[in-house]
This record gives sequence, structure tokens and C-alpha cells, in this order.
Amino acid sequence: MRIQGIPQRSIREVVGGVEVIDQRWLPHEYRVATLKSVNDFVAAIKEMWIRGAPLIGATAAYGIVASLRAKRDNWHEAAKYDAAQLLATRPTAVNLKWALDQQLEICRNAGSQEEALKKCLDRAAAICDSDVDVCHRIGQHGLPLIESLYDEVLKEPVNILTHCNAGWLATVDWGTATSPIYQAHKAGIPVHVWVDETRPRNQGASLTAFELAEEGIPHTVITDNAGGLLMQQGKVDLVITGTDRTVANGDVVNKIGTYLKALAAKDNGVPFFVALPYSTLDISISTGADVEIEERNQNEIHFIQGLHEGEVKEVRLTPPSSPALNLGFDVTPARCVTGLITEYGVFQASEAGIQSLVQAAQS
Amino acid sequence: MRIQGIPQRSIREVVGGVEVIDQRWLPHEYRVATLKSVNDFVAAIKEMWIRGAPLIGATAAYGIVASLRAKRDNWHEAAKYDAAQLLATRPTAVNLKWALDQQLEICRNAGSQEEALKKCLDRAAAICDSDVDVCHRIGQHGLPLIESLYDEVLKEPVNILTHCNAGWLATVDWGTATSPIYQAHKAGIPVHVWVDETRPRNQGASLTAFELAEEGIPHTVITDNAGGLLMQQGKVDLVITGTDRTVANGDVVNKIGTYLKALAAKDNGVPFFVALPYSTLDISISTGADVEIEERNQNEIHFIQGLHEGEVKEVRLTPPSSPALNLGFDVTPARCVTGLITEYGVFQASEAGIQSLVQAAQS
Repeated sequence: MRIQGIPQRSIREVVGGVEVIDQRWLPHEYRVATLKSVNDFVAAIKEMWIRGAPLIGATAAYGIVASLRAKRDNWHEAAKYDAAQLLATRPTAVNLKWALDQQLEICRNAGSQEEALKKCLDRAAAICDSDVDVCHRIGQHGLPLIESLYDEVLKEPVNILTHCNAGWLATVDWGTATSPIYQAHKAGIPVHVWVDETRPRNQGASLTAFELAEEGIPHTVITDNAGGLLMQQGKVDLVITGTDRTVANGDVVNKIGTYLKALAAKDNGVPFFVALPYSTLDISISTGADVEIEERNQNEIHFIQGLHEGEVKEVRLTPPSSPALNLGFDVTPARCVTGLITEYGVFQASEAGIQSLVQAAQS
Repeated sequence: MRIQGIPQRSIREVVGGVEVIDQRWLPHEYRVATLKSVNDFVAAIKEMWIRGAPLIGATAAYGIVASLRAKRDNWHEAAKYDAAQLLATRPTAVNLKWALDQQLEICRNAGSQEEALKKCLDRAAAICDSDVDVCHRIGQHGLPLIESLYDEVLKEPVNILTHCNAGWLATVDWGTATSPIYQAHKAGIPVHVWVDETRPRNQGASLTAFELAEEGIPHTVITDNAGGLLMQQGKVDLVITGTDRTVANGDVVNKIGTYLKALAAKDNGVPFFVALPYSTLDISISTGADVEIEERNQNEIHFIQGLHEGEVKEVRLTPPSSPALNLGFDVTPARCVTGLITEYGVFQASEAGIQSLVQAAQS
């Protein structure tokens, strides 16, 4: 997707390393960071310069490349050590371990540091390309859902609500929930996106809004409180969100607040779709109630970051003696989900639907 | 209720005027403002030093007292002019017109400026006392709902979720939604309040949290996204919100986001009550769908105020080219409301329930 008119990915190779967008400063400042040493990669993932499971995985894969670029006697032990450092940055991110395991496997089988370096570099690039392909296919399968809502006579934009950032900044390109939207826009279908600001970290207001603005897609930022009213007023044609984990019965674990939008969608007859790469499916868990919900630092609620007189600053919102509770995700029951948009097609959010998805992926 | 341990009302008479809390700086700074001239009163209401329909009405009543304190030849015409100035500050607030009409009626019937001044001062005090009484009675009728949820064997606190600020800072004392909570606390029933921060103006995080902290009531600030998950987890025993207007079929118009919490409460079998003074009932409107929803300035979404290095500052949250839409209220359908807590008792949110309420008020 584009930033300042220039098509780009969220991570790209440069001489001796990679360039990523330091997303902590968006939407106020567009800063590019070059990662070369393993320490750079550790900092970038841990301090959330980059975030989003697919992008974390891709970045970590290049972290091992950085390890292999350093000249040293015991390169294999060093790679294992560095992989452990990288893994410790965000221990719950599934894609992080998945990418590091692939690189360590290459190291184990390589005859020399040079061979390991070359193959790990190829693998990192392949992980990125594969992610772009998966996200593109999600968009291709989601596109007909938007097309079917477009009235060629009235020519009014299709109004799509999304929550949090399941956009290209969380992946390598296209995004998941945003991919059908970007592809509809490219196909000439007028779309308008309601962007939930998504407290506490405001990934909607800061990242999704930024993405859409840079791509020239009409959108409007709303508070997390507003989506229900907009659905009551008939101003939402479709909801598409991402997911952190979808489980065996079709329950969807996603950013806190998704469940409330799903309830409102159901109450108002608005289709509610979830876009996911197959890698986010976790059939080892039976129902959403079995997923442990991550409790994050309460300071994400007490403080918020924004632009003040040209500088990014943090302000406190709450009384000094009031505690806060910051739960990261909630569970949207399968009964509230109209369908799951994956790289293998659209599936029902049900045990049977998940089984069909698994079969499609394995065939 | 108390601030810094001292019981007080949100407005009180002092020599030559009234003292109010300049609520714009809460919870970061506790500033008291003395209002003496009519201009002071106009500024205090218009710039939202004070807010909340009951408190706006009480303040406006004292605004006419200020008009009558000024020595002038044509005091009656001056009072009418000043009333028009005061009315123009917040044209949609029902209590504002109601209080000003009472004072103008007194002026019309008074034989002298001195008589009008004395009687308007008495009426302003009576409006305040009546509001305190109404809110106290709401609390008395709501208290048994909390008592019935308290298990004397387990002795665990009753967990109550509230949205926005329907607290004593919006009234003269007690508040509406908070009144049953304060009275349960005074009665020795342990309560814990989940405080929705309530974007965009964050009246929950800044005002409700402040009130509860000052009163020593256990509470936790959460994002507006979190209430659904907490209900799924069984951590909410009861929801109580206020309302800006409740209509003939029992539909409840309240701060944007109330509807989403009501849906979640219904989905999880959590009782959802609305506390309201009879004055907020509007039987001239049939259903919530007929209420025009106020669109407020989008800057309330783009910017947020907080404390930075000891000073209250405003920061921008959104990209410069992203528009926002700021709708103030939503409609909670009567079917999602367990009951209406009023100064006349608890009534069903239905056409029949509203008719019973009207009968109770008129008898």
C-alpha cells in the first residue's frame, strides 16, 4: 500500500539489514528505522516499533539473518542465543516462534555460516512474500461480499466498520480485514470505512485511519461507543474485523470491544465478517471461553499519546488514586459471526465450518 | 458527597453569588469558581465549567438572582434579557428553560426588584433542595436492587458497571445512577464500580472516577470496549446508567455507547437499570427512533485533554486528514432495560410501565 503516494511494504531489505516503519509515532510522525544488529531487532519488536503477528514473524526472521551477518567463531550457538532473545520480546505471539523455528532449522542443517546466512535470507524473504500472498487472497475472497452490497444504480458507497488495526501495517502488505476494502477500492467500488478508534492503544485512530488516508480511501474516525448507533441508523452495511485467534467452534478472540460490535451487528441485521490467515486458527482450543485473556499494563488506560505543539507527548487521563484494568481481547461467540474470510475462501464460523477450512488448507 | 473529606454540594451560596466546581479541570485540578455577575453564569454554563441537566438548571436559576442584584432602573427588562442570554448557552438542555421560566414568572408577579430578588433567591435554593431530594429518593428506590445482589455469606462486593457521569457532579448532590451506589456504600454493603471511561469527553474516567475516589468507593476505570468481556466473565452483577431522555415506550436515550452495554447485559443475563428523575421523561415522543441525535464537534474526538508534567494539556489523536463523526447519544431499546429507577419507585421500561410512572407522579 502507499505512503505519501509511494507503494511500499511494512518491511523491506536494505544493504546490511531491513527498513521498517517505527509505528510508535504514527499518525503524527512518519519515521523509518533501519535495523541491522540483533539488538536493533530485539528493540523494534519489544518496544513495539512494529506490531501485528505477521509482521512480528517476518521481522524476527530477519533478526536471525542479522545474527548470521556478524562474524564469529560459534555462529550456530550465537544464532540460538539470539533466537532466544528475540523470542523473549513478545512471548505470546504465535508467529514469532513459528518464524524463529524455521530459521533455527535452517541453521541446524547448514554446513557453514555463509550457507545459513544465504538460506535464512531467502527464507525471510519467502515469509514476507507468502504473507503478502495470503493477505491478497483474503482480499480476493472478501471482495465479492463488498461487491454484493454495492448498488450500481444508487452508486452509494458501501459503509464498512472495522475495529482496531488489522491493516497492512500489521502484516507485510494488504492487511487482513483491510484487504477486501483495498481491493474493492482498486476495483472501483466506492467504499467508506467507519474506523473505531480502539482504546486503549487507539490503533484504529492512529494506524487504520493513517493507512486509509494515505491510500485515499474515504473514512471517518468514530469512538468505540458509536458503532451501535450507526448500525441502528442503517449507516453500516458490513463489519470486517481481524482476529488474534479463532478456535475450533468458530469463536473469535480479537481486540477488546469486538464482541460489542458483533452484538450490535446481530441486533441490527448487519453482516459481521472476520478476516484471518489460516495461521491464526487454533483448533487445539475448543471454545473461546477456554482462551486465557491477556491482561496488559494499566498505564495504557491511564495515559494516552498525542501531538501537542508539534511534539508527540503523553498525558494522564485518570485520577491518581483510581486503578484501571486493561484486558486485551474479548471473545465473539460464533453465533454472532456471519463468516470467516480466509485465504482458502469464506467459511462458516461453526465447528463444521472450521473443519471445512482445515480440509481446504490441507488439500 | 465529599471532596477531600468535606461533604459538599456541586453548587452553594456565598455572599453575593454562588460557588461551583470548575469541572473542566477535573480530575487533575480541583478549582472552585465564584459566580457573581450574569456574565460569570453565562460563561460557566456555556463553557461547561458545570454540566449535567439538573446542575445547569440550578445554576441558571442563580443567574437570574445575579441579574436582580445589579442596581438598575429597568430590572424587569434586564432580567428578561439576561434570561435569554442564559438560555442561549445550551439550547437543548430541558432543565435550563424550566428553571429560567420559573424565575421569570416570579419577576412578572413581583412588585419590586427587592421582592423579586428575595423570591428568586428562595426559588433557586428550593430548586437545589428539590434536586437533592429527588436524587436521594432515586437512591432509596435503587438500594434494594443492590441489597438483593449482596450475598451476606460470601460477603463479596456487588460489582456495578456505569457509563458516563450520572453522578453528583451532574446534579446538586447524590447523582442519579450513582445515588443507589452511594447509599449502598453508606448502608455498609460492599460495592465495586466498573467505570467506563466514556469517550469522547471521558466523563467516566475524569468525573465518575474522581467522585468515587473522593468518596472512598472501590472502583476501576475500564475502556468503553471492556464491559462486554467483564460480563462474559461474570464480573458484573448490575449495570446502572443515567439517561438524557426516556420516552413513552420506555426507550432510553443516553450517552453514546449505552446501547452496546445494554446489549451485552442482555446477552449475559445481567440486570440493566436506568436511573432518572421524573423530569427527564418525555412522553411527547413515542419511541427512541423519533429522537434527533445531537451531533457534536468532531474535535472532541480528534483531541483529548490530560495532565502532562503538572499541567493540563490537549493532544491530537488522529491523522490531520482524517475526519471524525461525534454523535452524542444513542438509543437503548426498552427490551434491553430491566427497569427504570425513579424518585417514585422502580418501573418497567414499557408503555405500561411509563403510564404507571406518570400516574405515580401525578397522584
